[in-house]
Amino acid sequence: MTSSKIFSNTSIIRASYANDSDVTLAQFRIETNDIDVSKVAPGDIILRNLYLSLDPYVRFTLNETGGDTPASWRLLNVPFYGLGISEIIASGEAVATKYPVGALVSGNVGYEQYTRISGLDDPKTQTDLRILPAHARDETKGVPLSYYISALGMPGLTAYAGLKVLDVKPGKIIFVGSAAGGVGQLVGQLAKQQGLRVIGSAGSDEKAAYLIEKQQFDGAFNYKTEDAREALTRLAPNGIDYFYDTVGGAILDLVLEIINEHGKILSIGMISQENGKEPYPIRNLNAIARKAVTIYGFIYWHHLQYFQNGELDTTIRSLLEQGKINYREEVFNGIETAPQHFINMLSGKYAGKVIIKIADL
Amino acid sequence: MTSSKIFSNTSIIRASYANDSDVTLAQFRIETNDIDVSKVAPGDIILRNLYLSLDPYVRFTLNETGGDTPASWRLLNVPFYGLGISEIIASGEAVATKYPVGALVSGNVGYEQYTRISGLDDPKTQTDLRILPAHARDETKGVPLSYYISALGMPGLTAYAGLKVLDVKPGKIIFVGSAAGGVGQLVGQLAKQQGLRVIGSAGSDEKAAYLIEKQQFDGAFNYKTEDAREALTRLAPNGIDYFYDTVGGAILDLVLEIINEHGKILSIGMISQENGKEPYPIRNLNAIARKAVTIYGFIYWHHLQYFQNGELDTTIRSLLEQGKINYREEVFNGIETAPQHFINMLSGKYAGKVIIKIADL
Repeated sequence: MTSSKIFSNTSIIRASYANDSDVTLAQFRIETNDIDVSKVAPGDIILRNLYLSLDPYVRFTLNETGGDTPASWRLLNVPFYGLGISEIIASGEAVATKYPVGALVSGNVGYEQYTRISGLDDPKTQTDLRILPAHARDETKGVPLSYYISALGMPGLTAYAGLKVLDVKPGKIIFVGSAAGGVGQLVGQLAKQQGLRVIGSAGSDEKAAYLIEKQQFDGAFNYKTEDAREALTRLAPNGIDYFYDTVGGAILDLVLEIINEHGKILSIGMISQENGKEPYPIRNLNAIARKAVTIYGFIYWHHLQYFQNGELDTTIRSLLEQGKINYREEVFNGIETAPQHFINMLSGKYAGKVIIKIADL
Repeated sequence: MTSSKIFSNTSIIRASYANDSDVTLAQFRIETNDIDVSKVAPGDIILRNLYLSLDPYVRFTLNETGGDTPASWRLLNVPFYGLGISEIIASGEAVATKYPVGALVSGNVGYEQYTRISGLDDPKTQTDLRILPAHARDETKGVPLSYYISALGMPGLTAYAGLKVLDVKPGKIIFVGSAAGGVGQLVGQLAKQQGLRVIGSAGSDEKAAYLIEKQQFDGAFNYKTEDAREALTRLAPNGIDYFYDTVGGAILDLVLEIINEHGKILSIGMISQENGKEPYPIRNLNAIARKAVTIYGFIYWHHLQYFQNGELDTTIRSLLEQGKINYREEVFNGIETAPQHFINMLSGKYAGKVIIKIADL
């Protein structure tokens, strides 16, 4: 007989679809239920969630159909899922060695205070949970724990591995789309560390100025107020060698026109082309053969080796600790604030990576 | 005092532009002039042209403006230029060691019987002339000399180096566009030699049948009579891993839709997108990021090392001599027949590489 240990668990539930409309609070319902953390099956673990990342791709789960988002990610009346940092507070007997109580992990969790993950003793169960290194707890060297879902998490991996795929060379020029975002700010700074000239686009004057003043960008422009063709002509009069593309659509078409011979483009997803809208018709693809351009599609979970071998942690944590790069995130307190911050994030209100702090370590 | 040695030289002159219209005989003028092959400046050579390749890209020189074709390639009242095989019959004293009389060369020459190439003693003069290996004369092993502008020339290089760029793997499936053309037939057979499953599209039932019956293709379809989506679904029900694309436009858009994850596309030029027509609007580019697809633009003169190091000659000549692959070309006699054959080639009347034989070796 185990004694029960019951916690109150507040969750953000997917209440309805937004589909083609703007996301509103009607899509979210805040629910509080009890969770008995003493009841843990042999293959289960229970996580106490500390930080939660709010990411644009979660918008796709508010479409009833469409895209490649699996139906299981779009169920109504269950919590949203997102990348989090959590502490293991209970672990079933079959998995306790691999997932020891007290360890910190990162991976997909619910938008909630506690998440139960089941079936980890079944080899068929897929999970992206990774145990964080012991030094993740050490915030004394200027690297907060929250960075394990930002600079040292998925955005960091996407930036780091994306530059590897582009195989960037010193002295060349890279244009970074959404440069003030969770991925773009790192792409630019890492490219700068590698000796490139770096220019970026951002959604406000403040964001563009921050990139130049605080994050070593050689140039940046506000794509909402300056024509992209004029800005790129001004900032890169000799053309662009690499384009780190987060958006697709019209900006990709423009870059194809002005990119240099042997230019390379990394496409990490075409936000502008999703949400059931009619895709932007790209007309400059003939530039690919004419200029021997390469376009690489990038899927971050194909590059998890940089988590597994510790390379991402070693490389980026070291640069952060030395102050050679920095990272901008906006951290808000309380799981119940997630819906409004998610809406604000989608509308571009925030600068840098948006994170909800759910609990203290 | 040198004795003069005067030959009659018939040339095909660019008489007028076709621009957006179909090419007609009005674009060509046949001229015969004398050439004194005893008069050769120190840096000049004179070529006796033996074979001439008729290639679709020459169509671009019949546009008064547009594209990336240099203006110097589009001059009126001068001979057309194209890839040829020639014998050096005179060589100036400054270049006679590098270009000895009697050697066979391949490179761009005029559509004519004799071509003078000047300034080869000036390091700034660019030339694509290459001296052919001595065994090029040996036609006893089933490799005619004309192959040095087809299977062992630019089309051969484009096929061979293109497959290198795609880094094709055994067991995968490749779809070859324009598979009956000078490049496509080799792409398919070389891929087959490397253990791939090979399917192709061609412009007639006869061409499609030839690919299957004579050139080891696993499947082929007539794109003029069968819907490409239906054909690819029939021939590649599990999707496509590689697409060797010579056309761009609608077929590229379709392949982006059905290509497998990690698929790779080589684009060697988008014939369908040139000639001043409004480009076909590609709508499926979001597939690149979604499926981690890579698109490589290919420019053949970036890969000349396979000529220079002899690798192309060794590899493909050996396969041809052993009968492991074969090559289909249509050879017509007489420089004066070039205009009509050029027109016929553009309209797809011929199967395989189209070559004009100008003179016997």
